[in-house]
Amino acid sequence: MALIVQKYGGTSMGSVERIKNVAQRVKRWHDHGHQIVVVVSAMSGETNRLIDLAKQVSAKPDPREYDQMVSTGEQVSIALLAMALKDLGVNAKSMTGGQVAIRTDSSHTKARIQHIDDSQIRSALDANMVVVVAGFQGIDDHGDINTLGRGGSDTTGVALAAALSADECQIYTDVDGVYTTDPRVTPKAKKLAKITFEEMLEMASLGSKVLQIRAVEFAGKYHVPLRVLSSFDEDVDGSFDDTFRQTVGTLITTDEGDTMEQPIISGIAFNRDEAKIVVRGVADRPGIASAIISPVSQANIEIDMILQNLSSNGSTDFSFTVNRGDYDKAMQILQEHLAEIGGKEIVGDNKVVKVSLVGVGMRSHAGVASQMFQTLAENNVNIQMISTSEIKISVVIQEQQLEKAVKALHTAFGLDRDDGESKVAGL
Amino acid sequence: MALIVQKYGGTSMGSVERIKNVAQRVKRWHDHGHQIVVVVSAMSGETNRLIDLAKQVSAKPDPREYDQMVSTGEQVSIALLAMALKDLGVNAKSMTGGQVAIRTDSSHTKARIQHIDDSQIRSALDANMVVVVAGFQGIDDHGDINTLGRGGSDTTGVALAAALSADECQIYTDVDGVYTTDPRVTPKAKKLAKITFEEMLEMASLGSKVLQIRAVEFAGKYHVPLRVLSSFDEDVDGSFDDTFRQTVGTLITTDEGDTMEQPIISGIAFNRDEAKIVVRGVADRPGIASAIISPVSQANIEIDMILQNLSSNGSTDFSFTVNRGDYDKAMQILQEHLAEIGGKEIVGDNKVVKVSLVGVGMRSHAGVASQMFQTLAENNVNIQMISTSEIKISVVIQEQQLEKAVKALHTAFGLDRDDGESKVAGL
Repeated sequence: MALIVQKYGGTSMGSVERIKNVAQRVKRWHDHGHQIVVVVSAMSGETNRLIDLAKQVSAKPDPREYDQMVSTGEQVSIALLAMALKDLGVNAKSMTGGQVAIRTDSSHTKARIQHIDDSQIRSALDANMVVVVAGFQGIDDHGDINTLGRGGSDTTGVALAAALSADECQIYTDVDGVYTTDPRVTPKAKKLAKITFEEMLEMASLGSKVLQIRAVEFAGKYHVPLRVLSSFDEDVDGSFDDTFRQTVGTLITTDEGDTMEQPIISGIAFNRDEAKIVVRGVADRPGIASAIISPVSQANIEIDMILQNLSSNGSTDFSFTVNRGDYDKAMQILQEHLAEIGGKEIVGDNKVVKVSLVGVGMRSHAGVASQMFQTLAENNVNIQMISTSEIKISVVIQEQQLEKAVKALHTAFGLDRDDGESKVAGL
Repeated sequence: MALIVQKYGGTSMGSVERIKNVAQRVKRWHDHGHQIVVVVSAMSGETNRLIDLAKQVSAKPDPREYDQMVSTGEQVSIALLAMALKDLGVNAKSMTGGQVAIRTDSSHTKARIQHIDDSQIRSALDANMVVVVAGFQGIDDHGDINTLGRGGSDTTGVALAAALSADECQIYTDVDGVYTTDPRVTPKAKKLAKITFEEMLEMASLGSKVLQIRAVEFAGKYHVPLRVLSSFDEDVDGSFDDTFRQTVGTLITTDEGDTMEQPIISGIAFNRDEAKIVVRGVADRPGIASAIISPVSQANIEIDMILQNLSSNGSTDFSFTVNRGDYDKAMQILQEHLAEIGGKEIVGDNKVVKVSLVGVGMRSHAGVASQMFQTLAENNVNIQMISTSEIKISVVIQEQQLEKAVKALHTAFGLDRDDGESKVAGL
């Protein structure tokens, strides 16, 4: 039997009924002899309610007091879940970050975990208790409560799993695993049994918001096997033994497995939230990239892809992408700096998207890029920008061609499921 | 300048606006050089919201988890008040019961304070900070949160004042002090500058619900001067110096002062929530009182006054009072036991009230009772039952005669204010 850390987010804990469902699920695992530590978020809506209160009291709430306050959302959740477990006859105990103790630095609202004392949890587990721990929070050397920032409950789960050397950290969410691509775009998307941390990072940063990036990085660093599964999957009639455990959801792991069987591409990620900006006719001289990008960065606008064409006659075009919400601001800043930069004109397009193939398999397979470009060409999809990393190839294309491109690539790289349409829990 | 512990209840903290008002008031005291520790309750309604949640999850919520959860109400309050204070430029810091640390026993939902570590608070005060402490909660030897039960924030305030040897503990409430009687009954009621703990206990137990009885007992035991004042009194244009401090509201103290100047009667309390039950024609034999009272007590019905008339011909009448809500149940129980008791009949009246004169002065003044009875007789108020203690005389009368009786007694014992009608903040 295994030591399992389970993490349930705000949606899974969103109502009294859902909390009772979580308790039922925890009980099933615990009944089967597993040692269970549960990490929970605040009930959905609760953190926002508290933040609203703080903002009504103060335009700029003091960070220490803000943490003191918002951390109560999780404190309520852990107590409710422990009550529900006890009602089911499961011996359970809730613990705040301070009670564990989860030690953080003192960076209020965005603290980092420094050390976890596992003695309290271990003795509770030894007494056959389920331990319910508040996510998103810890305590610093002054005894002050610090929160880890949004999504911090995933990080708490992974950090606890690492500290306890747990067999795995199960992240319960509203989907039943990680898919080859968004099933809303192609019904042929299929659930992955396994994905590497690096692939997951690429998928997550491209909009497959199943997991917080920080938690995935943390899990990779400390070799904590992460499993993504659904908390709404009510027809689970599994045995809840170790064999069952190792087949549900999607496992995120450092183990790349046998590369012979490893598919070249694990998934297709995309991001609809892109906008492209081109500065035409700039001099091809040292420092030109910095001259263009610096004023944009200084306005706190995040830049994604950057592309500089070959120069002809000493002049070149410089392109980059930003989030759509930053498009107007970025265009305005560049117009103001155009003379200084020495470019001819600035053109942009906020109706573009980015589509990426992700897979550790492409490391050992040449020809992925050419097959991608060929597939897109056959489908009359024009590529506007290209960017590559070791396990990812991204292209920027017209927004209206997104669905067509994803479907074609999904088929071309052998990702389609054999049995017709996908049924995804929670979507 | 003084070290003052101020306590604000749920109504004073009932909204963002009210919290800002509390911050303004705290700032005025602090600006004047006083050292201020503030104890607050949860925002009104919040504790009930949390209890409702717990009851939805579990018919009988686990007490440890219940405390873990409801204690968050105060944690939110302290953070909001500290934020509001910082916004006003006052250096402030919130502390939970655990952070202080306020040590309690492990009697969840009704814990008792055992020890308060004042070192954290003292060093914050030394740094010119206002310390905002969560009422109603503490932490036991296992690091578990325990709540003190309803009204526990008053107790927290008094206990902190005792631990810090504060100059006084100010209890802010919705009235501006303790009155000779309820100003809604007679507009001639006047605010008392001073009252003893014993008198306050008698006033409080009779329905003048300004303070929790437990807090008053605690303050008496540890000689903590308690002051009751209003948190809605917006026209305070006082100097907030020590002279001002010693004149606002009502001081509750162990100091009985010069008995020459001490009025005989401090106030008139009353309780509308009374019902009278008479068992007629019972044998005047040992054990008869127990035979009547035991079955009633066993049904968890609280008995107030008990009266046994002199017997005539070996038979007597036995009377007692209960809360009106328990009247029907008590009557039914006695009917069931009537044969066993050996009484003739049971009669009752749930339209009676109790009126009490309270005053330490009556210890040294004979004739208070006779003056009381004479005044009532002159006003055609019939006395049904009488009960006395060292500092109190209570009578049971017809409900419809309450106002008349209180007004007559108020005048007869020289309690009327000289300047016409009373204006009471918050009533």
